[in-house]
Amino acid sequence: MTASPFERLQERLAEVDDLAKAATLLLWDQRVMMPPAGALARAEALATVSRLAQDRFTDDEVGRLLEELRGLEESSDEDSFEASVIRVTRRQYEKATRVPSELVGETRRAAALGLSAWNQAKEQSDFSQLRPHLEELLELRRRYVECFAPPDQTYHLLLDDYEPHMKTAEVRQIFAELKHELVPLIAEIREAGDVDDSFLHGAFDPAVQRALALEILTAFGYSAEEWRLDETPHPFMTSPGTGDIRLTTNFRAHDITSLFATMHEFGHGVYEWGVDRSFARTPLASGVSLGLHESQSRTWENLVGRSRPFWRWFYPRVQKAFAAQLGDVGEEAFYRAVNRVHPSLIRIDADEVTYNLHIILRFELEQGLIEGRLAVADLPDAWNARMNEYFGLDVPDDARGVLQDMHWAGGSLGYFPTYALGNVMSVQIWRRALEDLGDLDERFERGEFADLREWLRSHLYVLGAKLTPQETVERVTGSRIDAKPYVGYLREKLAPQVA
Amino acid sequence: MTASPFERLQERLAEVDDLAKAATLLLWDQRVMMPPAGALARAEALATVSRLAQDRFTDDEVGRLLEELRGLEESSDEDSFEASVIRVTRRQYEKATRVPSELVGETRRAAALGLSAWNQAKEQSDFSQLRPHLEELLELRRRYVECFAPPDQTYHLLLDDYEPHMKTAEVRQIFAELKHELVPLIAEIREAGDVDDSFLHGAFDPAVQRALALEILTAFGYSAEEWRLDETPHPFMTSPGTGDIRLTTNFRAHDITSLFATMHEFGHGVYEWGVDRSFARTPLASGVSLGLHESQSRTWENLVGRSRPFWRWFYPRVQKAFAAQLGDVGEEAFYRAVNRVHPSLIRIDADEVTYNLHIILRFELEQGLIEGRLAVADLPDAWNARMNEYFGLDVPDDARGVLQDMHWAGGSLGYFPTYALGNVMSVQIWRRALEDLGDLDERFERGEFADLREWLRSHLYVLGAKLTPQETVERVTGSRIDAKPYVGYLREKLAPQVA
Repeated sequence: MTASPFERLQERLAEVDDLAKAATLLLWDQRVMMPPAGALARAEALATVSRLAQDRFTDDEVGRLLEELRGLEESSDEDSFEASVIRVTRRQYEKATRVPSELVGETRRAAALGLSAWNQAKEQSDFSQLRPHLEELLELRRRYVECFAPPDQTYHLLLDDYEPHMKTAEVRQIFAELKHELVPLIAEIREAGDVDDSFLHGAFDPAVQRALALEILTAFGYSAEEWRLDETPHPFMTSPGTGDIRLTTNFRAHDITSLFATMHEFGHGVYEWGVDRSFARTPLASGVSLGLHESQSRTWENLVGRSRPFWRWFYPRVQKAFAAQLGDVGEEAFYRAVNRVHPSLIRIDADEVTYNLHIILRFELEQGLIEGRLAVADLPDAWNARMNEYFGLDVPDDARGVLQDMHWAGGSLGYFPTYALGNVMSVQIWRRALEDLGDLDERFERGEFADLREWLRSHLYVLGAKLTPQETVERVTGSRIDAKPYVGYLREKLAPQVA
Repeated sequence: MTASPFERLQERLAEVDDLAKAATLLLWDQRVMMPPAGALARAEALATVSRLAQDRFTDDEVGRLLEELRGLEESSDEDSFEASVIRVTRRQYEKATRVPSELVGETRRAAALGLSAWNQAKEQSDFSQLRPHLEELLELRRRYVECFAPPDQTYHLLLDDYEPHMKTAEVRQIFAELKHELVPLIAEIREAGDVDDSFLHGAFDPAVQRALALEILTAFGYSAEEWRLDETPHPFMTSPGTGDIRLTTNFRAHDITSLFATMHEFGHGVYEWGVDRSFARTPLASGVSLGLHESQSRTWENLVGRSRPFWRWFYPRVQKAFAAQLGDVGEEAFYRAVNRVHPSLIRIDADEVTYNLHIILRFELEQGLIEGRLAVADLPDAWNARMNEYFGLDVPDDARGVLQDMHWAGGSLGYFPTYALGNVMSVQIWRRALEDLGDLDERFERGEFADLREWLRSHLYVLGAKLTPQETVERVTGSRIDAKPYVGYLREKLAPQVA
């Protein structure tokens, strides 16, 4: 019996996915386990496995099979496994085969050089060292865009790599709404005076933090059968195979805030964990976009992990584990401290509210760069002017300004918006879940999170990458992406602080 | 500039090696880190990566390049990098392309089924469950051999997979010598009465054992820059890349003997560590055979790790760390206990001396099976008869007899001899090192092992797989493989116990 075209496509996709999973493990191991001297050999193995995955996917045979399968796709229900696999594969194939492999190679090299220049530029707070690399990367990104489309869609095409089918105009509108609300809100908060969170910093034994984190994760749905939790300087989540979800976090001896980073990574992990397992070894088998991924990390970090009922459940345990440090701190004071809003220079240290403005600032600047309205040389000044306008802060040096993030230096332009889009979508989805589940406060106060997790799994996670991000949001919530619920949530939450 | 045929060969070999390294990491992770539920996805990723490595290596292009390179090989010094890469690649290519991929596939499946039948057969001590699988595997191994050569070389061809170029006749002669010495020696030891080693068993904190093991390994040459030490039920060593050597061991709470397993794995690791790094990503870049590998694990475990001067250095530390358990035990009593010779049923628990007879017994039986002189049905009786003849022991059940090892059930016939050949070669190489270095006792007593390690590195490890195993032994020692030094070593060491 010969295999059908769809079976042959599946076989090829499975092979590509197996290679991608091997690359995922090579990377995880490099960041978590590998002895440092293994770096050179690892870089080579990773390059080979990634290149083979790319070669096997962009092979003409895949194009021929996709042509043969037009009939099957059109005659199948759009929601069926077959139609979905063909549709998603076609979209990825068309995108991947448009770009000459020399440009891919040149961009990878420029990004590697850019990142290493950025390291030193940041250390020395000297933007001029990064400048030529950024200029080259911008040029390469423009050449990338030219492989596809008319020049008015430049930014959109970069964004599309991270948030497929999301339109720049739509993002602009969402961010305009956010900005309209946030700039005055932040000014109000500045005037209202600060919240004390000094007790979150001090001596906190990392081993005790780990035990507490595992207690939270286990209540959320973590088990040693399917998950790992390791420690790295920069927390991340990755999944080198179905049934194998790996979180990392960074328990620091001098503060207790990495509990939130751990819950954040759980959100990424549980999205991957919940994808329909019959999608395994196809392009459907992962979360659909960075924005939707971020919506789930923010759900578990902020909507759950910074909520009052969560801390009603968990604060007594934290207080008991760290009696010396927190014995005198009441639940309300702790709750307010972990929700403190405070304008600051650094994105990754930012709170739930100001974080979005950090993103909007980057979104505006990178559009200027891409569209040629802003020269790389003028980037530091433009950065500093906006920091003053939005946050009321003066940037003391470029290390704490335009050089703080690695994204642009690594060629990732169009990536930042996904962070704030995630915040926006998180509340849309959350509101919809509450409509079905009713108020969750009592359940959270008892440490019960299964109802929320199962709702998210069966409505969102299970879809994987079958639909586009916008279709996914619409399928789950009944409406397009919309900033209003998020703005409402922030206002309600911040009312006590600005009152 | 177009690449030369040799450069093209190197590029292909590098790609194959990168894939092999990825597979190595997938396996290491599976045994050491992976959450259990990841098993199915991992099996698929591993199968794909291994198959691609095989496909890329057996590709016709490699054959064409090897043909083109005959001239270069013949005109280059045999010892040169180019000639060595071509020679070793040709040998592996010719072997790999002779066997139809259906036979490879059938054998893999039969081995997987054999191993799972063995698990249950051993648990229930019921040989009949394994019997049909062994019969099928024997048939498949015969078909494998038929791909190559006249039937009188059957066993040799299987052995050749593990110990390239080693002749069965030569192994027979070496083992005959060993057996001639060992059978009476073991009888003498039985009569001489037993040595007390009861104090090696008791409560030993695994964390303290780990600290002691790392102290030993560090003195041997281990560093966190290039090595890892993890824990698994069955200790092993693997290297997923140059500069990345991974040992595992099993610190048990009820005895202290896994210090020896740790030194054993170090010996495997330091061999890989010491291979000429300019061989990276070629078939030269690993230890040359299982036998020579075992010679080095045995060197560090037995010739170093069970020696008097080693324990003169290290016993005071062990005694201090475990004062409650070993406070009353003198250095000489400890030394004798860790060198106790005692005939027993189980190979993996056997001491330095009787271990070889366990191997000889298996070597004799597997030759019988392969050559059709012994039916699978008669294997248990043949096993038990030899256990009685060689060790004076009655086998109470097949679980502790013919079913104890997994090798045959997994299709590994011709593998066992490498263990005893390793012992034999270890002493040949050791004697040669002492000729250059002089007596090492005083250095060991001070915890100094660098001279030995550097001698082994620069004479043996550095060669990698450039020469055949026999050529390697001759290059290092000046003579062919020879049992006499090993027999002499055992006699000398055991003199006190049989006196």
